[in-house]
Amino acid sequence: MNNNHIQSLLDNYKTGFSLEQPFYTSAEIFECEWQHIFKKHWLYAGSLAQIKKPGDYFLYHLQNEAIIIIRGNNGEVYAHYNTCRHRGSAICMQDKGSMSKLICPYHQWVYDKDGTLLNARMMPDDFWKSDYGLHSVHVQVVEGLIFISFKEAPPDFSLIRKSLSPYLAVYKINDAKVAAIKNYRLNANWKLVAENFRECYHCGGAHPEYCSAVIGANLREDTNELTNAKQKGWSEKGLETKLVEVTEGATTYAVRYPLRPGVESYSVDGKKISIPMGMHKDHDAGVVGLVNYPNFWMDAVSDYVWTMRVTPVNAETTDIEFCWLVDANAEEGKDYTTERLTEFWEITGDQDGKLCENNFTGIKSIAYKPGPYAPVEDQVINFVDWCVKELKEGMKVG
Amino acid sequence: MNNNHIQSLLDNYKTGFSLEQPFYTSAEIFECEWQHIFKKHWLYAGSLAQIKKPGDYFLYHLQNEAIIIIRGNNGEVYAHYNTCRHRGSAICMQDKGSMSKLICPYHQWVYDKDGTLLNARMMPDDFWKSDYGLHSVHVQVVEGLIFISFKEAPPDFSLIRKSLSPYLAVYKINDAKVAAIKNYRLNANWKLVAENFRECYHCGGAHPEYCSAVIGANLREDTNELTNAKQKGWSEKGLETKLVEVTEGATTYAVRYPLRPGVESYSVDGKKISIPMGMHKDHDAGVVGLVNYPNFWMDAVSDYVWTMRVTPVNAETTDIEFCWLVDANAEEGKDYTTERLTEFWEITGDQDGKLCENNFTGIKSIAYKPGPYAPVEDQVINFVDWCVKELKEGMKVG
Amino acid sequence: MNNNHIQSLLDNYKTGFSLEQPFYTSAEIFECEWQHIFKKHWLYAGSLAQIKKPGDYFLYHLQNEAIIIIRGNNGEVYAHYNTCRHRGSAICMQDKGSMSKLICPYHQWVYDKDGTLLNARMMPDDFWKSDYGLHSVHVQVVEGLIFISFKEAPPDFSLIRKSLSPYLAVYKINDAKVAAIKNYRLNANWKLVAENFRECYHCGGAHPEYCSAVIGANLREDTNELTNAKQKGWSEKGLETKLVEVTEGATTYAVRYPLRPGVESYSVDGKKISIPMGMHKDHDAGVVGLVNYPNFWMDAVSDYVWTMRVTPVNAETTDIEFCWLVDANAEEGKDYTTERLTEFWEITGDQDGKLCENNFTGIKSIAYKPGPYAPVEDQVINFVDWCVKELKEGMKVG
Repeated sequence: MNNNHIQSLLDNYKTGFSLEQPFYTSAEIFECEWQHIFKKHWLYAGSLAQIKKPGDYFLYHLQNEAIIIIRGNNGEVYAHYNTCRHRGSAICMQDKGSMSKLICPYHQWVYDKDGTLLNARMMPDDFWKSDYGLHSVHVQVVEGLIFISFKEAPPDFSLIRKSLSPYLAVYKINDAKVAAIKNYRLNANWKLVAENFRECYHCGGAHPEYCSAVIGANLREDTNELTNAKQKGWSEKGLETKLVEVTEGATTYAVRYPLRPGVESYSVDGKKISIPMGMHKDHDAGVVGLVNYPNFWMDAVSDYVWTMRVTPVNAETTDIEFCWLVDANAEEGKDYTTERLTEFWEITGDQDGKLCENNFTGIKSIAYKPGPYAPVEDQVINFVDWCVKELKEGMKVG
Repeated sequence: MNNNHIQSLLDNYKTGFSLEQPFYTSAEIFECEWQHIFKKHWLYAGSLAQIKKPGDYFLYHLQNEAIIIIRGNNGEVYAHYNTCRHRGSAICMQDKGSMSKLICPYHQWVYDKDGTLLNARMMPDDFWKSDYGLHSVHVQVVEGLIFISFKEAPPDFSLIRKSLSPYLAVYKINDAKVAAIKNYRLNANWKLVAENFRECYHCGGAHPEYCSAVIGANLREDTNELTNAKQKGWSEKGLETKLVEVTEGATTYAVRYPLRPGVESYSVDGKKISIPMGMHKDHDAGVVGLVNYPNFWMDAVSDYVWTMRVTPVNAETTDIEFCWLVDANAEEGKDYTTERLTEFWEITGDQDGKLCENNFTGIKSIAYKPGPYAPVEDQVINFVDWCVKELKEGMKVG
Repeated sequence: MNNNHIQSLLDNYKTGFSLEQPFYTSAEIFECEWQHIFKKHWLYAGSLAQIKKPGDYFLYHLQNEAIIIIRGNNGEVYAHYNTCRHRGSAICMQDKGSMSKLICPYHQWVYDKDGTLLNARMMPDDFWKSDYGLHSVHVQVVEGLIFISFKEAPPDFSLIRKSLSPYLAVYKINDAKVAAIKNYRLNANWKLVAENFRECYHCGGAHPEYCSAVIGANLREDTNELTNAKQKGWSEKGLETKLVEVTEGATTYAVRYPLRPGVESYSVDGKKISIPMGMHKDHDAGVVGLVNYPNFWMDAVSDYVWTMRVTPVNAETTDIEFCWLVDANAEEGKDYTTERLTEFWEITGDQDGKLCENNFTGIKSIAYKPGPYAPVEDQVINFVDWCVKELKEGMKVG
């Protein structure tokens, strides 16, 4: 599939209908998405809760990269390509750990946390260490959440910061405790995962546990009165309630909505999971839902934060990382159990994973044609429109 | 490999010799075969014995499709692409089952067995359900065997029907019992599997069990006198004996031949396997061998039917499904055991599978050159000639 | 990647720096290497110790081939493509064994050890067996080591013979005992494996066991005096000591160097492993290190020979075979144990395998750029220069 063919598919895109098959299956279109969406926008990598001390690091695997996300000596964060400047060896061989210096395991070249080459033994006199620091990518941190950008001149981060901060600050993620991280690989195009998480048309049929916790998720209950009352209360407590929609030039969605009356947390039995997190004083904060295109999802309740990082592997494969954060002082076994903490999103995520893979299976049929989204799938349409716009603009520029 | 290269390989084909390597290994030639052989001809899918009641269905997986073969309310059979008209999700997630309505698991769109869209909840007023029925393929049933065609205007089925019916009717497959289905994946081009099943030059060396059951299979015994005597007897009992050869414009081969005297069935010990099947009264019907290019093989004895469905996955991989059918009234444990029923073809099929994979391994060598078929491999030559002819004609037309 | 792109990468190669990423990852460059390096040069296949008796054979798997290396009736060695001249079936299905005749398992065509077709049953009168002998490749044996060449007119072998013989003869490999063969598959380009084995810049950090055995391997000890003294002693005993360097037009490297004083063999505890091998009388022969580009490595001590055969599978995958040979009269359990024999190179090889795979992981990064080799990596530079020269010359010729 050459660029003309892709352009023609983009030109023929009809908003309100799902995309043509190649957008979900073609390696060439995937490459365009990688260039014009993933390498252009800010990508969620993880949180400060994962790297609390200087030298703590984790790797973010995406495409052929394993970006080293490492905490500096003064709390700052660096993101380096995991490739030694000598003969290219990967420097960090473990997916997470702590290193006071980054030492290549092959020939022991030594780099500082900021990427500076400190020592390269037995190199000749005309070798200038300053020419051989690690290659790095841009980093931004908003209230404990780490975003990276591969772009030389990355887009302005201030809009994302402004949208997310008011919702995030209360959770004190910098101090939070990482209770669990789980990774999944789905046989589905990454956009199907994103589409799945932007509509609840499927919730009534597919997610009994989720619908038990969230009033209105089945699309059969009128929640206006309850929502208005709850928002008044949240505002009085200083909790952010302002809806942020993805609009032209923006990538962020943010919302707070109520749990079903009597439900204290995202849990199968509706009871609370842990002690209130961060600055929360009770279990009455409802749900905070955050999205940042293209790869960040978060649902938080009063007592825990659940994040989802979506990482496309190729057109047909997508990696998902779930992370559960609890209050810094929450003790496993006493204040919460990991089993109850992870149960709700493991069940719901498994249901969604199967739906996404099944969706992908059907889309690969030669008989698949774009079908009409239902009116309640308007946020899916927003997402798909955004993808098409990004591709069109990207391919125009080059 | 472009079309000119393929054309030139086709032009250089020399009947009597095996094909050039790319016919067994090239993805491009495989694609041509898919277009000009598999998408043009009738493909065996399964039997009515697998879907006896309205709503019973099974999936036929081939390429990116999982065709839903479903029984209608009045005995008829439908074949639908397994892709919802909403967002493309696969509708049937299980390989077989029973559904009174076809309900998409994603957003619960509801289709009737014939593919009509019955309900699409929450869609707007200007949505016309009649525009969104399931996409379907053609179906023909001959004496309980189901064939499908992807071609918009499929080839005439009457010749296949005329050739197969006289041999099949006596087995009453519509009422038969599915005793076992087993699936295998071979690392071999599909044509090598077909070639293997069209000659017995290899039987003497490779199939001791088969040669024990079938007189003459070792090509060292004169069977003319026995065959003539048996055919006279079969005709008197009303059993079809007329040889059908694959000739110009036809795809079917059919034959009846004798078992070794004293042998009652395809079994390792030569003893009968089950009660006589369908209209048979005894264990003296010999072997019925049926083939329909490109994917159907069947060997039936007096007490059971064994079918083989050949499904190419790609140039280097082929899926095989074996199905064993017994009389409607045969009881497992009393009239037959599944172990004895399947033993003969599991052993023989395993021997053939290894030979095919080993054949493919050697063909991938850079030193492989087309070699001469032996005179006793004349039906292999017939098959290969047919493939080349279909490709030539297909590529001429477009 | 087309030939112009490859040419341009070759033209831009800067000696002293590691190669551009595509040399390690591109399928097209790998194909060039296969054509212009592996199909042109002599490749190590194995040793006579593996096929002592007439009809003994083993298969050398490389690319789509499984070359049959078989001992003839008079000690000679043949190398045949494993593809029957009838329909291409592989003839040998086991990786090693013994066959007085090569009989194809499919239709029992019978070949002699030298590849002559002896019998093809049921073929017509105008079939000439002499037209259908097995296709073969060239073979050369030097002091028990078997090399093959795919080239129609293979390069002169006399230089390799002249370089290796003086070092090899004393081991009497023809009579030796194969004590162990182990196979590994590495996720790394084959050149990274070769590069790894041509420098000890990494030894100090990565190979504590190796550095315990070999004085100077850590590059921190002056070994001149010891080496001079040992070489004098070795020469007096008639052991070859002349360094052979890879020079223009040659592919062989050979060296003898001392073990650490008190160390008797390549062993973790420094003690001897087995009885002296071949013509050795004691455990004081030091280490013989032999290399022949592109795929042969050997390290031998007084009591055992260890060979490494490097076989590229594709740009990203490399097969390694380790073989341990001991004296013909060495008895397992009495004179040596397989566990102690293999321990040293299993440990060291595992360390190297991990380094190579880790090197490859980092090279796949988009941020990877050729880096400067250290002066002590001069033999790596020699190897990489050689590869680039071979590709340049090969692509010039065609």
